[in-house]
This record gives sequence, structure tokens and C-alpha cells, in this order.
Amino acid sequence: MATEQSVEVFGWAARDSSGHLSPFSFSRRATGENDVQFKVLYCGICRSDLHAIQNDWGFTQYPLVPGHEIVGEVTQVGSNVKKVKVGDKVGVGCLVGSCRSCQMCAQDLENYCSSCTLTCGSLESDGNLTQGGYSDVMVANEHFVLRWPDNLPLHAGAPLLCAGITTYSPLKHFGLDKPGIHVGVVGLGGLGHVAVKFAKAFGANVTVISTSESKKEEAIQNLGADAFLASNDPEQMQAAAGTMDGIIDTVSAVHPIMPLINLVKTQGKVILVGAPDKPLELNSFGIIVGRKTVSGSCIGGIKETQEMLEFAAENNIVADVELIKMDYVNTAMERLSKGDVRYRFVIDVGNSPLKST
Amino acid sequence: MATEQSVEVFGWAARDSSGHLSPFSFSRRATGENDVQFKVLYCGICRSDLHAIQNDWGFTQYPLVPGHEIVGEVTQVGSNVKKVKVGDKVGVGCLVGSCRSCQMCAQDLENYCSSCTLTCGSLESDGNLTQGGYSDVMVANEHFVLRWPDNLPLHAGAPLLCAGITTYSPLKHFGLDKPGIHVGVVGLGGLGHVAVKFAKAFGANVTVISTSESKKEEAIQNLGADAFLASNDPEQMQAAAGTMDGIIDTVSAVHPIMPLINLVKTQGKVILVGAPDKPLELNSFGIIVGRKTVSGSCIGGIKETQEMLEFAAENNIVADVELIKMDYVNTAMERLSKGDVRYRFVIDVGNSPLKST
Repeated sequence: MATEQSVEVFGWAARDSSGHLSPFSFSRRATGENDVQFKVLYCGICRSDLHAIQNDWGFTQYPLVPGHEIVGEVTQVGSNVKKVKVGDKVGVGCLVGSCRSCQMCAQDLENYCSSCTLTCGSLESDGNLTQGGYSDVMVANEHFVLRWPDNLPLHAGAPLLCAGITTYSPLKHFGLDKPGIHVGVVGLGGLGHVAVKFAKAFGANVTVISTSESKKEEAIQNLGADAFLASNDPEQMQAAAGTMDGIIDTVSAVHPIMPLINLVKTQGKVILVGAPDKPLELNSFGIIVGRKTVSGSCIGGIKETQEMLEFAAENNIVADVELIKMDYVNTAMERLSKGDVRYRFVIDVGNSPLKST
Repeated sequence: MATEQSVEVFGWAARDSSGHLSPFSFSRRATGENDVQFKVLYCGICRSDLHAIQNDWGFTQYPLVPGHEIVGEVTQVGSNVKKVKVGDKVGVGCLVGSCRSCQMCAQDLENYCSSCTLTCGSLESDGNLTQGGYSDVMVANEHFVLRWPDNLPLHAGAPLLCAGITTYSPLKHFGLDKPGIHVGVVGLGGLGHVAVKFAKAFGANVTVISTSESKKEEAIQNLGADAFLASNDPEQMQAAAGTMDGIIDTVSAVHPIMPLINLVKTQGKVILVGAPDKPLELNSFGIIVGRKTVSGSCIGGIKETQEMLEFAAENNIVADVELIKMDYVNTAMERLSKGDVRYRFVIDVGNSPLKST
């Protein structure tokens, strides 16, 4: 529902489950008194963008402009906005709204609010669907806008808004942020590689667990992991049994979790942040005998996301990214579907022509 | 290895996987300086006794004298024993030994010591297999002997040594012991019925969840549960979605756990204490979206078992039992295999003829 005051926006959208993205113009609401409008500079490409444009989960509504790892520069603020001013660098992650009154919101856990509004594809109160950051202008309520730390690179920091908080939050919440403890990270993709960096920054002894022995050098040399375990080598896995305090499992394909549960100590924790589309097999005996725990974790709240950005800035943590222009996005999606990226594509939205020619 | 000083004991043992129990005489070690010898008065029949005598888990060694819910009266103590004296009432539960030096033992979690010695069927340092409480005399290290509270009935209290601590420990450890919280108990058998009593004594609002609508009256009228949910009624289950802080799942048959996970609030916990012999299906999405947790829990340590007995005595908590003589034990096992007991058989060992006639 465009109004006279609404903002004209140029982005790239998927129109159907082919997932093909192409130029799309739409409008966003005018900057309300609690809103921040900003020019999008960079937007990360998350694996879930690919799921969404292809309607893998069955609830996508088209046209859809994806993108929830959005960094930009403020161009306008509403009269009540105190958090940022014009010219400030800001970010928007997975969330642009929540009820602000439930028990979860009261605990700064907007991500677990049952009425939270996702940055893309959620119905807003005005009846419009939210559209994401593969576009030149964003408008969002200031509560959901993150202040960007001065010394955090804009392009390589963008993926922290989803991949970063998705791994930082469970490391903190489940007590895996203590120096000297042994943390396993399963899967070395967009999420896994930042999980390694955060865990190392917390002072943990970090082991990367992957099916692909080829990632060993990368994990240890480039990402600074202390050790590597090939999950398809039963001997290596058995030798490491009962040695880890906790594991962050970032794998979103169906995979066996009992060998991971076997890696943690008594009272150890396996935390799932990737979401396979079919059930995993849980052997009760394997968790009963050592009072072990399998938990899930979903992104993080706004306060914690701000804290994570500041921690990343202080500890020089960014994602390893491949910067692309918007007209490469369909190729990027194709490469992403094959896992051919180390480790995150980021669209240089500010320097990409967005309108159809 | 009987020695001159060893104690002659009469009990009932299974000789093969038929599970048939019959009179069996054997010897126990003489009372060492740290040991307590006691006359067995009562012994509960746990579902796992049935699994063990039938070799359901594949590691039973025969002959096996089952029984790990043992209550008796002290007849002899070693020179170093300070905990109890001759004439005292005592109990022995699932454990009679542990390494006493690992991190788990140091935290009074002997039950999670990787070298713990089970009361039945474990290899002892002298090369003998431990034999349980379906017998007239026990000898155990004082550390693993529980002082019996004066006002706790001996026969009805016996099942607390396994069924009681198995449910008390996770209620405490996972923070489900706070007044006013909502606790679900799945399954209304030996474990479930005492779980309801403990949760009520902690001040929780307790809902029993069972496949069998026929247990509703029993749960509410006799056990004092606040509510009942028929787990095979999708409407009832959906109406209760997201209402519970935690669930103790006592069911040891394969069953769906996602409907249980759906019952707990955001950050809620489902704790498994029954151990189905096949894997359960875990849908990651169902735990990720609400930061939910599935954990296991296995009996409890000695210090916590003592605390549990005292709590039970103060709060008049006992198991609902059917007292039998030893010569009824094979019939009892048959009935137990059909779930035909409310809720625990206890053998009146002290008043049963044990020797073969």
C-alpha cells in the first residue's frame, strides 16, 4: 500500500519458486517517528535466502526481496529516534519487529517472541510483506536497528547480523564462552567459520568437526582452530569421545548426532543451529547415561546482537567474504547451492546498479 | 571367590534369559573396615530388573540376583564406619561403588562416574559379580549406604532408592523444583507416580500426560496431579502447547517426543529418564525456534539420594506398592511385563522363605 509519503525502493526479487532474482521496484513506509531510514551499502547472502526464494519451506510469498544481513548509512530519522543520527552506520539483521510486551521481549529475547516480524517475508501491521536488504533503501523501527561499531568493517561485518549472532548467542547462553573449555564446531560454512572465531576469542580450545578432511588445513591455518576431526573417521571420533564441553552444530543437512553426543563430556551440551528438514535420530541412552543435553538456538535478541557486534569489533572478528555486485546474485545462489563459497557472499549493494535496464 | 570369612547368602537368581527366578545360595565378602553388613528386609522390583534377568540389553551374566531398591537393618559394621551403627535402618540403591577420585565423584555425582559399580551384575575389584537385594544379606561400602529416616516407611520407601531418585534428581537439577511452575510427567508407572508426588511437594502445578485416558482419575484423585492430558488426543495436546516449564518423560517404549517438546514453553526442557531401545525422532526446528532442550538424566548421586530420602520423609512421600513374598516373584515379573501393577512390587524379603525346599 504505497502512500504519498512512502519511499520508492529498488531491489532484486524472486517472483516464483525458480528462485531467479531480477530487478523489482517497490515502496517502503515513510520514516515514522520511531523509524530509521538508511541507504543500504552491503547485504550478506545467507543460505536461508536461497531456501526462501525457492520456497523450500513452503511459505514463501512472492515477489520476495531477500536479505537480512544489512549494513548501511542513515539518511533520515524519525522525531523520537535517539539511538542513531543521519550519517551513522547501522545494521539490520533477521528481525524488524516484535510485540515488545511479552515475557520474551521483556528479557531482550525478541527473537523468541511469538509475534516477531522477520526482515523478509513477514506480514507487517500495515498488511504489507516485509522486504529485505537486496535493495537500496531500508526503513526500520529504531529498536531493531543496530549501531555499527566504528572499527568494524562494513562489508565483512554484515554476515555477523545473522551468522554471527546465531553462533555467538548459544556460545554465551550455554556457558561455552569460558576460557580453557573445549568447544566443537560442526560444519565449516557461513555459520561454522564465525563460530570458530568467536569461540577462539572467548579463549576456548576449538575443534572443527567436518565430513571433509580437505577442510583441516583451512580450519587450523586460516581460522585458528586448535584441532580438526573428520566425522567420517570412526577412530578419530572414538579417540575424542568425552573430551568436549559443548558443540555448536551448524549443519543443516540430515546427519547423525549421536557421534557428536558421544564427543561431549558428562553433562556436555550439543546445540543445534542448523535445521535439517527431516528428523534426526536421538538415542535416549546416549543422553541419559551422561546427563547430556541437546538444545536448539535461534539467532539472538537485539541487545545481544549489539553486544556481539561490539565484541567482534574489539576482537577483530569478521566473516570471510566474497564481495559481489547485484548482477552476480543468481550465479552466487547457484554456487551457494553447491557450497562453493568461502564463506559468505556479500552484495556490494551501494555500488550495484539495481534498476532494470 | 568365597573365603573363610565370607558371608553365606540366600537369594533368588535368574540362571538364563528365560528370566525365571529360583533359590540361589552364594557368598558375599566379609564385612571390611569400611563396610556395612545388613539384613535385607524389603526390596523393590524395578522394570530394569525384568530387562536384566531376560538379558534384554545383551550384557547380563548369570546367575543374576536382581534388586537395587534395598532396605534393611544393620547387623555388622567395619571398624572405620561412622555413618551407621548396628540396628540402624539403611538403604542401598543402584550403586555400590565408584572411583571416588574423578571429577564426577568429587561433585557427588558417583552415578556419572565412568567406573561406577552397579548393585547387580557389575564386576567388582575381587572379580566377583555384584548381586542385588533379592537376598537376605547385603554387604556394601558405607559411602554407598543410605541412612533411613525414622519416619519413612521401610517397604513403601524402598522404591525411592531407584524410582524416587531417578525423578527427584532431574526435577532439582533442571530447576523444576520451584513453586508455581508447570511440570509435565509423561507415563504413570513406577517412576511417573513418584515424579508426580515430588513435583507436587516442590509446589509445582503438575500435569500427567499419558496415552491412557483411563489413568485420568487415578492421576488427579489418587496422586494429586492438577491436570491430565491424553497424549493421543491432538486437540488436548494442541490446547496445552507452550504451557509447561519442563517435562519428565518416564516412558521407556519408543514414542514421539516432538508433541512433548511442543508442550513446553520457550526455553522449556524435556528430560528423558526412560530409555527406549530404539532411537527417537528429533525435529531440530522444534527445538531451535524456542531454544528448547532435550536432556537425559540417570538416577542420582549418594548425597542427593540421602537428601531425597529426607525430603520424602518430611513430605510423606512413598511409592504406592504391592507387597509380595519372594515365592510370588515370577508371577510379579509376568504381571510387570504387562504393566499390571500400581505402581511398584516390593518383596517382603525379611518374611520370605528364601532357601530351596
